[in-house]
Amino acid sequence: MPNYLVILTFDGSDFHGWQTQPELRTVQETCEQAVATLFEPGINVTAAGRTDAGVHAIGMPANFKTIKMREPHVVKRALNGLLARDVRVTDCRIVPDDFSARFKARSRAYRYLMETAFVADPLTRRYAWQAPVELHLESMQGALADLVGEHDFSSFRASDCASISPVRRMLSARMTELGDGKVELFFEATGFLKHMVRSIVGTLVEIGKGDRPPEDMRELLAHPDRSSVGRTAPPQGLFFIYARYPESLE
Amino acid sequence: MPNYLVILTFDGSDFHGWQTQPELRTVQETCEQAVATLFEPGINVTAAGRTDAGVHAIGMPANFKTIKMREPHVVKRALNGLLARDVRVTDCRIVPDDFSARFKARSRAYRYLMETAFVADPLTRRYAWQAPVELHLESMQGALADLVGEHDFSSFRASDCASISPVRRMLSARMTELGDGKVELFFEATGFLKHMVRSIVGTLVEIGKGDRPPEDMRELLAHPDRSSVGRTAPPQGLFFIYARYPESLE
Repeated sequence: MPNYLVILTFDGSDFHGWQTQPELRTVQETCEQAVATLFEPGINVTAAGRTDAGVHAIGMPANFKTIKMREPHVVKRALNGLLARDVRVTDCRIVPDDFSARFKARSRAYRYLMETAFVADPLTRRYAWQAPVELHLESMQGALADLVGEHDFSSFRASDCASISPVRRMLSARMTELGDGKVELFFEATGFLKHMVRSIVGTLVEIGKGDRPPEDMRELLAHPDRSSVGRTAPPQGLFFIYARYPESLE
Repeated sequence: MPNYLVILTFDGSDFHGWQTQPELRTVQETCEQAVATLFEPGINVTAAGRTDAGVHAIGMPANFKTIKMREPHVVKRALNGLLARDVRVTDCRIVPDDFSARFKARSRAYRYLMETAFVADPLTRRYAWQAPVELHLESMQGALADLVGEHDFSSFRASDCASISPVRRMLSARMTELGDGKVELFFEATGFLKHMVRSIVGTLVEIGKGDRPPEDMRELLAHPDRSSVGRTAPPQGLFFIYARYPESLE
């Protein structure tokens, strides 16, 4: 049973997120249908991250095991022929039998794009959070630095988050000004709880607007309290960028 | 009767082009409805260029005359409140009574974006022509240079083009490699016939692919023949960038 690793890029705009749900168009369901057509029915496709509705991916690793054997470059080309145009396979190879895109990932990276221009750009409205706000970036930098390290992120999880432990290690949390009022936030962590990035971004923006002090971030980590975090930022600014695996698998 | 000049930016994906047509969603109709709500019914909005369905605009000048008088900054803000999110007013001012965004324009500029990567990017599929082709850019450069100057562009007009004269002066026609297989074409001319840019791009790409010799461009200009041009390039790669007006109006 060959185990295929594919790297996916998708536009989340017209998907109800990664995970299969009855009656809804999801990335997982779309991929599993294509894999079923190419190989055999009933194959499960597992991704490194289960993105929410409207969230995009640049390089999402996913894997699936098949009975039939096909060349990876043929699989890549055939899947791209079968898939809708809003999801593409950019890479495909055969990995060891025990590889799981989800369970073997050592870290995941996301970016979040904000556009603060007074007049929102219609051409990027599906790919950024557009809000005409003035952000005090230095306050946000301070709060970002507080996120790095191992923390209980309970404050920043959705009420229906199914993870057993709320503890994650944030490896990197940084901000880049892109000009024209565009701000990119980048997060890499061992893992993310449900809605965690969007919830952190919501709180960061409230700090940037001056609606709450920068110290709030440290406080929310030290004394988890879901009721006092900022509003969850909208999904269309969020992009899953990559996952990292142990070197033996890279 | 104040004469308002507005600069529009729009995502053409969900519009059937600029010009009002029965039963279809068009940019003109959308703008005229917003203007009617803000001022009075029956106001005609005239744009510098009448873009096709799916074509985008970064800075499309348009003007309209009203009976009521309102401050331009109020008009800008109010129209953005009334318009759908895929069209925005980025600027608004009052111009002389005889100004017409269409008839006073001295030139118009368009850009056309091609992405030739083997795997098409889902995130830019609405904003580029994605085709996994290998382009010989030097041949295209030669053909682009031949376009500059005053020519009869009959070869590159749609069969239902209503312009009286097919003669236009191409002021600039150039190409920029953006990396990752992305190529941007830029055209500025005194005016464009219906489908002219897309028809020129279609022929240029056939030259780039080596399907026809670079000399064909010169030939099609010297001896107009609609039957021997390349296929019209798809609309989603085309952006109206700006129009220029006599200095007295700028």
